[in-house]
Amino acid sequence: MKDYREMSREELLALQKETQEKYEEAKAKGLKLDISRGKPSAEQLDLAEGMLTVIAKNEDCYSDAGEDCRNYGNPTGLHEAKELMAEIMGVTAEDVIVCGNASLTIMFNTVSRSFTHGVMGCTPWSKLDKVKFLCPVPGYDRHFGVTEYFGVEMVNVPMTPEGPDMDLVEKLVAEDESIKGIWCVPKYSNPQGYSYSDETVRRFAALKPAAKDFRIYWDNAYGIHHLYEEEDRQDKILNLLDECKKAGNPDMVYMFASTSKVSYAGAGISAVASSPANLAEIKTYMGYQTIGYNKVNQLRHVRYFRNLEGVMAHMMKHAAIVRPKFEAVWRVLERELGGTGIGSWTTPKGGYFISFDALPGCAKAIVAKCKEAGLVITGAGSSYPYHKDPQDSNIRIAPTYPTMEELETALDVFVLSVKLVSIEKLLETR
Amino acid sequence: MKDYREMSREELLALQKETQEKYEEAKAKGLKLDISRGKPSAEQLDLAEGMLTVIAKNEDCYSDAGEDCRNYGNPTGLHEAKELMAEIMGVTAEDVIVCGNASLTIMFNTVSRSFTHGVMGCTPWSKLDKVKFLCPVPGYDRHFGVTEYFGVEMVNVPMTPEGPDMDLVEKLVAEDESIKGIWCVPKYSNPQGYSYSDETVRRFAALKPAAKDFRIYWDNAYGIHHLYEEEDRQDKILNLLDECKKAGNPDMVYMFASTSKVSYAGAGISAVASSPANLAEIKTYMGYQTIGYNKVNQLRHVRYFRNLEGVMAHMMKHAAIVRPKFEAVWRVLERELGGTGIGSWTTPKGGYFISFDALPGCAKAIVAKCKEAGLVITGAGSSYPYHKDPQDSNIRIAPTYPTMEELETALDVFVLSVKLVSIEKLLETR
Repeated sequence: MKDYREMSREELLALQKETQEKYEEAKAKGLKLDISRGKPSAEQLDLAEGMLTVIAKNEDCYSDAGEDCRNYGNPTGLHEAKELMAEIMGVTAEDVIVCGNASLTIMFNTVSRSFTHGVMGCTPWSKLDKVKFLCPVPGYDRHFGVTEYFGVEMVNVPMTPEGPDMDLVEKLVAEDESIKGIWCVPKYSNPQGYSYSDETVRRFAALKPAAKDFRIYWDNAYGIHHLYEEEDRQDKILNLLDECKKAGNPDMVYMFASTSKVSYAGAGISAVASSPANLAEIKTYMGYQTIGYNKVNQLRHVRYFRNLEGVMAHMMKHAAIVRPKFEAVWRVLERELGGTGIGSWTTPKGGYFISFDALPGCAKAIVAKCKEAGLVITGAGSSYPYHKDPQDSNIRIAPTYPTMEELETALDVFVLSVKLVSIEKLLETR
Repeated sequence: MKDYREMSREELLALQKETQEKYEEAKAKGLKLDISRGKPSAEQLDLAEGMLTVIAKNEDCYSDAGEDCRNYGNPTGLHEAKELMAEIMGVTAEDVIVCGNASLTIMFNTVSRSFTHGVMGCTPWSKLDKVKFLCPVPGYDRHFGVTEYFGVEMVNVPMTPEGPDMDLVEKLVAEDESIKGIWCVPKYSNPQGYSYSDETVRRFAALKPAAKDFRIYWDNAYGIHHLYEEEDRQDKILNLLDECKKAGNPDMVYMFASTSKVSYAGAGISAVASSPANLAEIKTYMGYQTIGYNKVNQLRHVRYFRNLEGVMAHMMKHAAIVRPKFEAVWRVLERELGGTGIGSWTTPKGGYFISFDALPGCAKAIVAKCKEAGLVITGAGSSYPYHKDPQDSNIRIAPTYPTMEELETALDVFVLSVKLVSIEKLLETR
């Protein structure tokens, strides 16, 4: 296809007319589509139906250790649930605390605790004039939301296909004691689907932060969320907990994971893995905060999935549903925008998102144009702290939730919107 | 029975010898009993077996509004779950947010949020030199634990059979701006089983606190936990949310409740009810803290219990199991200690506890004596802030968890321990 940027004013005007007509046709259908959130589809959720009744009788409610999971107690989670989450996270059961249905809650509580009680004897953040977090961008809006809510100043760090710009990360954490953390989605990152290289992980483990209470918030949300079954088409990353230990920085990382996109997005189980010293702080906090998380639900997960093998078999059923949707996105984008120079996109091997970069200054207008035609996509800028994309170019595509048919229709609207907004932008300078 | 306090030294010595022999016999049995926590028994938990499979198929997972409860969304809870909890709490669904399995977590988070973000525009508590809470004593150890964890200074307020000493409460909150809250268990209180009188509730609603951000933490944990079916043998309390509205103090109260002792202690659902302004603050916080609580579990509760009538019928099954245990405690205490003057106890019509008062200075020694014979009871002082019972006389008896047989054995050990320690104490002054 011809590069739009090389077209004459006349060519662009002709293309605009033609595209506008198609857009009006699509708009006239009165669509109501949503590809804004990384939510599993009903078809995916249906896969775990057996979990609903795997605990069916009173006598099913006891853990291997004989605990009555219906009753109070064991706030750090069932041992067998720790084992399951440990396998998923590539650590041992002793490294793990299992919590409720949202790993976001563990992250929020960790930030909150750092504000009220401090980290390992350091001054509570609420007593400091300034607290900063590094935010690889584009990134996960809910991470940035947590730190924004607590008044943390967020500092952008550019992402690369190998992970965050580590030169910058190393420099900033070494020279600024007010930098207390960094948000990371190390595998199939949100929204680009990048996986951190071994060198990146090792450089994280070897960081020399000025702040003793600096922590890496390692949200491995998509650690086992591959699109392909073939091992050579699956990304692998190093285990940061191991690497931190080796590098003599055992306490520098909190790892998070959940089964939100394994079992149920709203009714799974979550976990944090960390050093004994960090876990001890979390346990103390939890000892006051809860009488224990829902252990019946933990037991449901263990009895249904049994072990990592069971989980991975289940993940391949997800992949069979999700992969065609990713492929449909790539097919349409390539067919409609390939060679036009008005958009580029990522082609991850897993995760929940495709990151799309429009011409600078176009993202907000594209999102608005989509909305006008009945398609909701993630707000432009959402992948940046304070919702401020300095380039106004990044758009997150979440293909999993709609049906294939809805997705195809949504993509039609999307590419038409990209074309219209881009043509308008290009015409400004013609 | 003769009052021990009127016995001569010789009589006491003879009694001591006889009691010591019985105690040694009991001790020789190598018992391992625990009446320390207010936990439901397995028999009680077995009552809700049907809840395990009430959601059995994929198509069962949708709310009345058609939401897929397995997916993300609706952080404040399913509407039908709000209706159920509202009925239990005597409020309307609009007053309610439904959360996870522990109301303690909502309370903890509320205190935490007040520290980090303040209450309705007031200075965050973390920025204040001093924050105080009033603590009716004896009270619930986990309440006091939360405020202790946050460094709140706790001020004792004596309990009476009508509720906290309201003269003192009114005086203290009016004159001290650093008093930001009070912990209340208004019905079948922990540990005495007292229910607040209408006058007490009205005086609470009419408080004129110096602090604008003063809040009543109204933990109605045992609101529907009656021991008797006959209405005239059930305590009733006024609804503080209503009374606060009437008194022009709509924002002064957070009400908490859960199904921990209705369905499952570790896998129930919890709720907070409050004014629109307070709920708005909670919603903002939750919007960052979670992607929504487990809605499948909320739906299980709704489908299983259906409505308040269903819940109350279920509570009567609990009562049939729990009541004989309370009666056994009273029977043994009366038979063994009635008229001895060395102990008094409460006779509530509901809740989970009986409060026992030993002679001053004896509680710790009694608990230790019980432990020596293999019986774990709640640590003396636990019902007081900082675990400091100024009289060292209060002991909480939690009769629900053990079987009847275990309970009878435990009570034998308990009364022997009370007698031995009391005799020793009395001999000190003979």
